Amino acid sequence: MSAPVVPPAGPLNGVTVVDLTRVLAGPFCTLVLADLGARVIKVERPGVGDDARHIGPFLPNGLSGYFASLNRGKESISIDLEDRADRQRFDDFLASADVLVENFKPGAMDRLGYSWEVIHARHPRLVYAGLSGFGRTGPLARQPAYDMVAQAMGGVMSITGPPGGPPTRVGSSIGDIAAGLYAAVGVISALHHRDESGEGMLVDVAMLDCQVALLENAIARFEISGQVPTPIGSRHPSITPFGAFEARDDLLVIAAGNNALFAKLSEAVGRPDLPSNSMFSDNASRTEHETELRAELERSLRTRDVAHWLGILQEAGIPCSPIHDVADVLAHPQVLARNMVVTIDGDDAEGLRVAGNPVKLSAFPDPMTRGPVPRLER
Amino acid sequence: MSAPVVPPAGPLNGVTVVDLTRVLAGPFCTLVLADLGARVIKVERPGVGDDARHIGPFLPNGLSGYFASLNRGKESISIDLEDRADRQRFDDFLASADVLVENFKPGAMDRLGYSWEVIHARHPRLVYAGLSGFGRTGPLARQPAYDMVAQAMGGVMSITGPPGGPPTRVGSSIGDIAAGLYAAVGVISALHHRDESGEGMLVDVAMLDCQVALLENAIARFEISGQVPTPIGSRHPSITPFGAFEARDDLLVIAAGNNALFAKLSEAVGRPDLPSNSMFSDNASRTEHETELRAELERSLRTRDVAHWLGILQEAGIPCSPIHDVADVLAHPQVLARNMVVTIDGDDAEGLRVAGNPVKLSAFPDPMTRGPVPRLER
Repeated sequence: MSAPVVPPAGPLNGVTVVDLTRVLAGPFCTLVLADLGARVIKVERPGVGDDARHIGPFLPNGLSGYFASLNRGKESISIDLEDRADRQRFDDFLASADVLVENFKPGAMDRLGYSWEVIHARHPRLVYAGLSGFGRTGPLARQPAYDMVAQAMGGVMSITGPPGGPPTRVGSSIGDIAAGLYAAVGVISALHHRDESGEGMLVDVAMLDCQVALLENAIARFEISGQVPTPIGSRHPSITPFGAFEARDDLLVIAAGNNALFAKLSEAVGRPDLPSNSMFSDNASRTEHETELRAELERSLRTRDVAHWLGILQEAGIPCSPIHDVADVLAHPQVLARNMVVTIDGDDAEGLRVAGNPVKLSAFPDPMTRGPVPRLER
Repeated sequence: MSAPVVPPAGPLNGVTVVDLTRVLAGPFCTLVLADLGARVIKVERPGVGDDARHIGPFLPNGLSGYFASLNRGKESISIDLEDRADRQRFDDFLASADVLVENFKPGAMDRLGYSWEVIHARHPRLVYAGLSGFGRTGPLARQPAYDMVAQAMGGVMSITGPPGGPPTRVGSSIGDIAAGLYAAVGVISALHHRDESGEGMLVDVAMLDCQVALLENAIARFEISGQVPTPIGSRHPSITPFGAFEARDDLLVIAAGNNALFAKLSEAVGRPDLPSNSMFSDNASRTEHETELRAELERSLRTRDVAHWLGILQEAGIPCSPIHDVADVLAHPQVLARNMVVTIDGDDAEGLRVAGNPVKLSAFPDPMTRGPVPRLER
């Protein structure tokens, strides 16, 4: 077993998670739990380990930065669930654990003799979370999935991309990440219930289901209008003006979500006449006349650079932003002030910077480093 | 006050949430809590109410479908936090509540005399969650934000979009939704801690921070290579083949995340020679030669329709999908089998279909309807 890790102080201190997960959705769930103070023990197949160990980018020493960023601060133990002695060790771990998380295809744990029913009968207080592409029920339950499949099948690609252009993948893996977050919600809720009732439960989270939950207003728009939402580029489908606009040197984002902000914006760009134009008098009219309004606003915006407009709009209290790339994000004073870039503390990935924990809690410190990346036992 | 609502049976039964939130990030957080069984009492400004009541699409009776989908199953009470009698009513609610959630700009609650410090001193067991664009600390703490600003400033736009094309908004509001989910994680964790310690805490969640947490491998890629990630369309930056491919009639998504799946895929498309080509021998080589591999695969894929390939690839156990639009999603047998489309049960939005709860729990039923949409009190 890798070196023990002291979890950060947090609301989940005292919670032990046995973690059979691989790649992204499951490890993201247990990363959230680890950042909140849980002890996470990653169980890996001897000699093989998590697939993510073989996904780049790689550090000069061969460690996967992808794996490191998702598994820092977790422990690892190599266990072969088909080996008799190893199964006994696994059972011992479960006996002292609070949570088991896995993201095998439904059915795989059953074949190993570790179905929810068997585990619940032996460890009635244990919370069992299973993440999968499609969940444990329904015609696709046994089908495999990755992020890309969830994004395609769940509809988010169909509403992302250039206007009139092809459906486009969201640049980060929200197919996996959304499932990881919902599973964390489920696990912690189940712990809360167990504290009261003594009863563990099964948390069954499907990547596809989580994509449906993320569609939000696209569902309401389709249900009410009957029109199928399509990619519309960098604007909002039902709030206007709310999108990326052309200034002289680059794009900037402006989000004026109500009449008061629209009035301020119109003043700020030197067009105080706009709100009294009947095409732009309320959000519904502005959304109907998005093209016309964009033309009016960009006529002003194109005369000066982004930096000029940001100064003016921020002063006026109008939500706005340049479009940051990843380098900008990691160097931004607000991101750094919030301790959202932390470093890994430990041998193999010493000093590697990774995302911090966005759940800031008054009762606990927010550490600036994270525990080491576990090595795979031989 | 609107009619009392019986929360669904769930792990948060017995938890009362006083909800001052508006528009999306905050209401999404309390929607997650409501779906898990919490009683959510939405506090709205008399005569005005949540801004989301004025955002389309609208039902024929004038009710906002946008508001309905986010607030079904919550109660509503009109309270003016600047009115003396109303403040007393608000204090009484807080005294019997477990959680307060608000998404005003930091400072707004302080000006009303309801700072975290004041509330914590009066109600030490209460969990207080504040969602905001940038959080309660740092140089931008008092700046306003909406989803679009968080997406632009947090970097996800810079990695989303057509290859070589402009940065593109994610089609659903993940700037808000990610913050809502992380806030739910924080609230439930804080409840777990309170159950043990008796101590409430402040949960401070920033939309910008959550976007940083979502960037995942884009951070590792930049840290290790020094190259700034850009939009790359519908493929994965470090797993190959993993993306949208052209068949004869349309695009389909294929995700072969490891060597075994790649070998199966090569067989399935009639190109068993591909894995022995040194350009395609492992994931790193395949990612380096993504263009060449895509050309080889599409030469086969373009000969037949999507439906043909889906049959073959599913049979071979290779993760794949058509690209669904919202109509396809809402009619899909798997989505329906998982009860991910539920209907609102109640006067103003009777029968309106909305997303269900992706957290499926063995200890509780998963209801097929949701409580009514609260009216704004006069």
